[in-house]
Amino acid sequence: MPTDEIKQVIIVRKDLEMGKGKLAAQVAHASLMSYFEAERNDKKITASWLGSGEKKIVLKVNDEEALVKFYNAFQFKKVPCALVTDAGLTELPPGTKTALGIGPWLGSEIDKLTISLPLL
Amino acid sequence: MPTDEIKQVIIVRKDLEMGKGKLAAQVAHASLMSYFEAERNDKKITASWLGSGEKKIVLKVNDEEALVKFYNAFQFKKVPCALVTDAGLTELPPGTKTALGIGPWLGSEIDKLTISLPLL
Repeated sequence: MPTDEIKQVIIVRKDLEMGKGKLAAQVAHASLMSYFEAERNDKKITASWLGSGEKKIVLKVNDEEALVKFYNAFQFKKVPCALVTDAGLTELPPGTKTALGIGPWLGSEIDKLTISLPLL
Repeated sequence: MPTDEIKQVIIVRKDLEMGKGKLAAQVAHASLMSYFEAERNDKKITASWLGSGEKKIVLKVNDEEALVKFYNAFQFKKVPCALVTDAGLTELPPGTKTALGIGPWLGSEIDKLTISLPLL
């Protein structure tokens, strides 16, 4: 394994105007689902991440189209990721895509695609 | 297992004035750590939660003292939980306790202690 920093990145939509608690729950959901994908893929990477402080970064995109674009791009690159679709029981219509979890994975591989995105 | 709703509750401090991204990352951290505690404790409960939409609720307390009080209370009740201490690399001093993850666990057991807390 390269000596590359391992991190998890979560991308959220800024156009949904979710409340802080709702937003945080979506980020947590994306984080956990993506963690499971990564663990299925490479247990060494997830173990290393858990043992080194679990770096997590939250970024934002403008809308659902951009979120799905990143999802497809990371899937194409075979980077473990998970797209969260809200059940729509509270603030949002059912099926709304809210957040994308990526990794934990090699930071350099994630950064190639997300480097231009602002922090939430 | 009783036919009780299984959920995860995350409690955060409202006095820290973290940015939205920082806050969401702390909630995700609490969620994942507490998930591992719960899984070690009772895999049936975590599997049931994962298979039923992973209900997560984010609540708030006034300060660190209140956060630690809830942590101690849930430990005393033997409810799986995890207290997040921030490494202090960005917005907060090292060692700051930011969030408490509880469960996934039987909702009725969690509610007994948290029923009076407001949503974030």
